[in-house]
Amino acid sequence: MDIAKRCEQNPLLAPKNLKAGIDGMEITCLLNPGVFRYQDKIWLLLRIAERPIQKEGIISFPIYNKEGKIEVVSFSKDSPDLNASDPRVISYKGKDYLTTMSYLRLVSSTDGIHFKDEPEFPPIFGKGELETFGIEDCRVATTEDGFYLTFTEVSPVAVGVGLIHTKDWKNYVRYGMIFPPHNKDCALFEQKIGGRYFAFHRPSSPELGGNYIWLAESPDRLHWGNHKCVAVTREGMWDCARIGAGAAPIKTDRGWLEIYHGADFNHRYCLGALLLDLEDPSKVIARSEDPIMEPIAPYEQTGFFGNVVFTNGHYVDGDRITMYYGASDEVICKAEFSIKEILNTLK
Amino acid sequence: MDIAKRCEQNPLLAPKNLKAGIDGMEITCLLNPGVFRYQDKIWLLLRIAERPIQKEGIISFPIYNKEGKIEVVSFSKDSPDLNASDPRVISYKGKDYLTTMSYLRLVSSTDGIHFKDEPEFPPIFGKGELETFGIEDCRVATTEDGFYLTFTEVSPVAVGVGLIHTKDWKNYVRYGMIFPPHNKDCALFEQKIGGRYFAFHRPSSPELGGNYIWLAESPDRLHWGNHKCVAVTREGMWDCARIGAGAAPIKTDRGWLEIYHGADFNHRYCLGALLLDLEDPSKVIARSEDPIMEPIAPYEQTGFFGNVVFTNGHYVDGDRITMYYGASDEVICKAEFSIKEILNTLK
Repeated sequence: MDIAKRCEQNPLLAPKNLKAGIDGMEITCLLNPGVFRYQDKIWLLLRIAERPIQKEGIISFPIYNKEGKIEVVSFSKDSPDLNASDPRVISYKGKDYLTTMSYLRLVSSTDGIHFKDEPEFPPIFGKGELETFGIEDCRVATTEDGFYLTFTEVSPVAVGVGLIHTKDWKNYVRYGMIFPPHNKDCALFEQKIGGRYFAFHRPSSPELGGNYIWLAESPDRLHWGNHKCVAVTREGMWDCARIGAGAAPIKTDRGWLEIYHGADFNHRYCLGALLLDLEDPSKVIARSEDPIMEPIAPYEQTGFFGNVVFTNGHYVDGDRITMYYGASDEVICKAEFSIKEILNTLK
Repeated sequence: MDIAKRCEQNPLLAPKNLKAGIDGMEITCLLNPGVFRYQDKIWLLLRIAERPIQKEGIISFPIYNKEGKIEVVSFSKDSPDLNASDPRVISYKGKDYLTTMSYLRLVSSTDGIHFKDEPEFPPIFGKGELETFGIEDCRVATTEDGFYLTFTEVSPVAVGVGLIHTKDWKNYVRYGMIFPPHNKDCALFEQKIGGRYFAFHRPSSPELGGNYIWLAESPDRLHWGNHKCVAVTREGMWDCARIGAGAAPIKTDRGWLEIYHGADFNHRYCLGALLLDLEDPSKVIARSEDPIMEPIAPYEQTGFFGNVVFTNGHYVDGDRITMYYGASDEVICKAEFSIKEILNTLK
């Protein structure tokens, strides 16, 4: 049962509403923002995917070269060595590339609906060998010690999770890759439990195992251990192919509430929820049978990659979760949930 | 060029030389021992793979059930749902199982050639949900603070790296999974560099990336971060399909020397070497063009899984590396190397 209250102004942001951030490129998609409150405003840390304006018969896309400069790679669409059946990833001579390059950019709003660029706050681009294909889907954990950003680092050698710390959104400290490949969908808990930091993450395995949600613990948020599997995919259900954590879990009286995404083998992405023990978040108390949100609005069903609702950002006021999400891998939308209502749906 | 000096008594240990450690089982294979010196003796921490005595027409193998008890699972070899083309892994109705259950067992020797059981020192069996298919290929790091064991934990949800600490080989402290799936081949450095602990590990990716050697750092050996890729597979070469670290790296004047295994797409396993910067082991100074050891002896070419030399244990005296290794995934052998000779082969 879809219990999301969608914003009537959806979609709030589309590629045409912003200027490309990389010279000579166009914005292909706006995706899955991190969300936080700062200086009395609501901020989205958008994932922006850009590529060169496409010429007929040619697929071209940007990567960072060894000097850290943007370089455009092009392949003829006729090439028998090319597999371009997925709009997100292409394979050429057995090697995989992304069709777009993603980076992170800040927009802010006073009403939570109308967002504007923040040119004084610099975008965050990929940097170094582990980010030559860009950075994606950033979660923002708001802590007593500033903001911790966890995001996907993509390169030819790996897909893993990177960590950045900032207090002012102008000065960033990069801590490198905190979860080794293949890993993404990392959501930090915003407070310690029993003196330790915790995080959800989503390793993927080529054999034995799958695309499951794991929990890890840390003394410092930089180094992680004691990994445990907390939720697996469920055969025949809406979350049978892959699952991954959304934003930071929400502390409720009944436990930690985590909104997660689940996809089936048709790559249809829905949202569900997990409830975890307050003292020991490796214990799952309850889990959604049915999705709490499904791609049912037109803008969620059609776009760059249709039938997708995906979230990794929200803020909480009492019982209300204000969630921002990516729809069809192309536009940014908003929906509200009642925490009580979500808890009532859990088995 | 194969520069290993093989022991004339090879193989030193075969399945028939030891009694099964699990009631009702037989030893199928002896594999890839960790190696250490203790109480004036040389010790091997063998990986022992056992299964029930097989009956005609049926494949049966042990797993731990939810109560931590051994349970035998059986499938008819005629079943159309069964894929048993690999002697190590079978697939039934799309789910993967191991054909044997591995655990770790100690044997000791005064001459390094004749090894005997050590019944006073208990074997290490898999324990808990992440080890229901057993534990494998244990590296032993000998440190100022006792012995640290890193090994592969196998279960239906994951293949990852576990950590155990012991000072006396009787009392063990288990620290859970330190590298999340899909990961194996973890070799700890035996001393700190710049105040931090380091380890090699081998994540595997279903897409973007492959089976590469990575380096991580830690404040405490329990929690790991700042992951970096240090060596990748090489197209068209003996190490084109997968590579992984062997035992703890050896400190030499010219750098950290790491013996690693490399396999091609025919699953032929050879050994090579990496030389890494003493101060910054993420920097590779040199790497073997050709293997330093190949499966050329009869016992390395034929067995449970032929054409395999695989090592994760050695001890060092001056210029001499005394290495123990698994041959054909079935028997335990010994070979010696000169450190100088290895360094001379590196490009």
